[in-house]
Amino acid sequence: MANKPRVVIIGGGFGGLQAAKELANEAVEVALIDRKNHHTFQPLLYQVATAVLSPGEIASPIRRILHKYKNVQVILGEAVGFDLEKSSVKMFDGSEIPFDYLIVAAGARHSYFGNDQWEADAPGLKTIEDAVEIRRRVLLAFELAEREAYLTGVKPHLSFAVIGGGPTGVEMAGAIAGIARRALAKDFNLIDTTKALVMLFEGSDRILNTFAPELSEIAKKDLEDLGVEVYLNNFVTAVEEGRIKVGEKWINCDVAVWATGVAASPLGKMLGAETDRAGRVFVNNDLTIPNHKNIFVIGDMVSLKQEDGKPVPGVAPAAIQMAENAAENILRDLKNEARKDFKYFDKGSMATIGRNKAIVELGRFKLTGFIAWLAWLFVHVISLIGFKNRLYVLSEWFWAYVTRERSARLITGDAEEMRETPKLSEAQPGILTPVAAPEKVKRTVKKKAVSE
Amino acid sequence: MANKPRVVIIGGGFGGLQAAKELANEAVEVALIDRKNHHTFQPLLYQVATAVLSPGEIASPIRRILHKYKNVQVILGEAVGFDLEKSSVKMFDGSEIPFDYLIVAAGARHSYFGNDQWEADAPGLKTIEDAVEIRRRVLLAFELAEREAYLTGVKPHLSFAVIGGGPTGVEMAGAIAGIARRALAKDFNLIDTTKALVMLFEGSDRILNTFAPELSEIAKKDLEDLGVEVYLNNFVTAVEEGRIKVGEKWINCDVAVWATGVAASPLGKMLGAETDRAGRVFVNNDLTIPNHKNIFVIGDMVSLKQEDGKPVPGVAPAAIQMAENAAENILRDLKNEARKDFKYFDKGSMATIGRNKAIVELGRFKLTGFIAWLAWLFVHVISLIGFKNRLYVLSEWFWAYVTRERSARLITGDAEEMRETPKLSEAQPGILTPVAAPEKVKRTVKKKAVSE
Repeated sequence: MANKPRVVIIGGGFGGLQAAKELANEAVEVALIDRKNHHTFQPLLYQVATAVLSPGEIASPIRRILHKYKNVQVILGEAVGFDLEKSSVKMFDGSEIPFDYLIVAAGARHSYFGNDQWEADAPGLKTIEDAVEIRRRVLLAFELAEREAYLTGVKPHLSFAVIGGGPTGVEMAGAIAGIARRALAKDFNLIDTTKALVMLFEGSDRILNTFAPELSEIAKKDLEDLGVEVYLNNFVTAVEEGRIKVGEKWINCDVAVWATGVAASPLGKMLGAETDRAGRVFVNNDLTIPNHKNIFVIGDMVSLKQEDGKPVPGVAPAAIQMAENAAENILRDLKNEARKDFKYFDKGSMATIGRNKAIVELGRFKLTGFIAWLAWLFVHVISLIGFKNRLYVLSEWFWAYVTRERSARLITGDAEEMRETPKLSEAQPGILTPVAAPEKVKRTVKKKAVSE
Repeated sequence: MANKPRVVIIGGGFGGLQAAKELANEAVEVALIDRKNHHTFQPLLYQVATAVLSPGEIASPIRRILHKYKNVQVILGEAVGFDLEKSSVKMFDGSEIPFDYLIVAAGARHSYFGNDQWEADAPGLKTIEDAVEIRRRVLLAFELAEREAYLTGVKPHLSFAVIGGGPTGVEMAGAIAGIARRALAKDFNLIDTTKALVMLFEGSDRILNTFAPELSEIAKKDLEDLGVEVYLNNFVTAVEEGRIKVGEKWINCDVAVWATGVAASPLGKMLGAETDRAGRVFVNNDLTIPNHKNIFVIGDMVSLKQEDGKPVPGVAPAAIQMAENAAENILRDLKNEARKDFKYFDKGSMATIGRNKAIVELGRFKLTGFIAWLAWLFVHVISLIGFKNRLYVLSEWFWAYVTRERSARLITGDAEEMRETPKLSEAQPGILTPVAAPEKVKRTVKKKAVSE
């Protein structure tokens, strides 16, 4: 076996990647495991979903990012459990990877509050595949409406529903409205895309409720100026194909996007540690789980309170900071130094609304409008990995802004109304289970059924 | 109904697109039907399959290309047959589209010579989805080998098989060898990617046999310099997962790519016209089918002999020229002028070998080596649709050439060994049929079993 301690990192997102970089060229052997070969820049997924960016522009092969570091090994595979007696990670194919230290950074998905069957009709937005599927459905809705208008002379009214008024939901709603009002308007001769209805449903009394109330208010106004209908205090109680239930009413929609709820990776529970209802792991101040000083959990999987009593948010800067802290604690161990407690430095929050507005909050500092959007642009381009990606994304945005085009507008895969959505079954992690054989769905003219 | 004659075009490839452009702003109403929303620049698909380019860089939404033309309607849908009595096209969803003139430009796929079941284990390269799937398998092969080396210490030998020595096969084989020798070599610590075996199997006595014999010979040498093993006079007689049968011998391979055979769209037969064994339609000199002076067939679906007795090849320039001729004949009809017979002008042929060599042939004019590759680069960039695509592709190539990187290296979708390959069933066009539930395939070390 290796002489140096082996650190196994599960997950190649913001947390896992940063941990690997912190341990690079140190006196450890690192193995980073991810079930995908690429790191996805999640904050820009909504732009893939609305056909501004292509997948390759916001994703980078993990192996390429880490190839300089000779003590870091990248393994493609899925971790499905642990043998804590033997200190090993159990892999999907039955193999086991032993560790001296373990950093679990497997992230979180959206939660359907126990109704996972809703995912087929209201997909979330966490991976490239999610984004490509949503893109397909959004573009397909317009294509099928144009076809129906051509064949029958009737112009269907399109409606899109976004569930969840956090940053992801707000960004998706604003971007779909943007597509409909501008980029696609010229391309469709028979239907009027500007008449598409975009609805955002939020259960609490304000959107972006982690921001200051005045920013929520400004964002709501900006969204409404874009043509988005914002419904507050509205919970979604059921999802079916072609419609969602809001409170007691059924509302028809051509495409629904789920952007709420948190479900931490099931690996948290499998560590035997205590978790909250979303599966997030309660960690010590040094980010380890109780009784296992060599097992760290970081990022969106963690439930940890800051000094002011507020929970550390599930955002990229928090994951990165936790990774730095966990890595440092491992290195301190090796030097027999005392560990460091984690302290979160809030670097602020941002959310975009449409193509030229945003809100930014950092402590008491607040920005809105176009200036905020410029700040958002700057921060996100700088954070992208890879000079080439930064260059491409900047030019895509420039192109989209100037020409109002949506250039990444491919529908790949199934073009007819039938949908086949592979689901990652949580009962058997790693097995992609196709839903039942696709049924042909004849598109019928849908009437809007919202009554306020 | 419309006063102007209605021209329905089936297919948005090179032929269909050109026909639409020729009829744009003329005294006709045009409806272009395609089952995909994008036009794919097929000559560069092999670069998506080997992770040099991203799908969005070689595909353009048809609607966007034609949006300027007010008399051209783009319809997303699949044509599944015809009612020639009623002069209408039958669509997958049961609707019918009437026509006064019909141009069928639905292209061709590869042929498995009656063994369609081979497609799951030896996919072809005709669409973006094909290219992304092949890319996934190629990259996955390296990832799984690295994982095996990590877990067991054994370094598996990888082998790739390309079946068919035409331009597609030669380009794929050269590009896979290129990846293995250069771009991926630095990224994998444990396996030696340069030792990957790349085999090309050709049934005739020379590769690129539509070119002059001396060019075939030079191309073969160039391929061998790249490390490709070229097997001539070798027919593939069976394909299974993980191995192919060449003559009487089974040869193991991690990935197989099918690049031979022609199967024209089944729409040809459905027109009731006579076809050759590949389903290509015999057309009159004005490109119509017998007894239907208003029904044209163009492009790869056509079987037509030139004056010298040689068949018009299934290449993009031929499809484009046929489209121009068919469109012109329609316009001449409207002016009561005599129709024009089709005459193919051979604009030459090209094929690349690796990243800086090619062969070019135009009549007696021949080029090889780097100069030929520059010519190839020039022609293909100019032919790409869209300024932005040209700019991006040029910069991708520049980047790949200078840095030897392969930037478009995402594995999307199913990352574990299980493969789920939706197949377009020819019995029921338009229905994507998933293969049986994925089985988990444990990777075992494969021994090379070729005996010459």
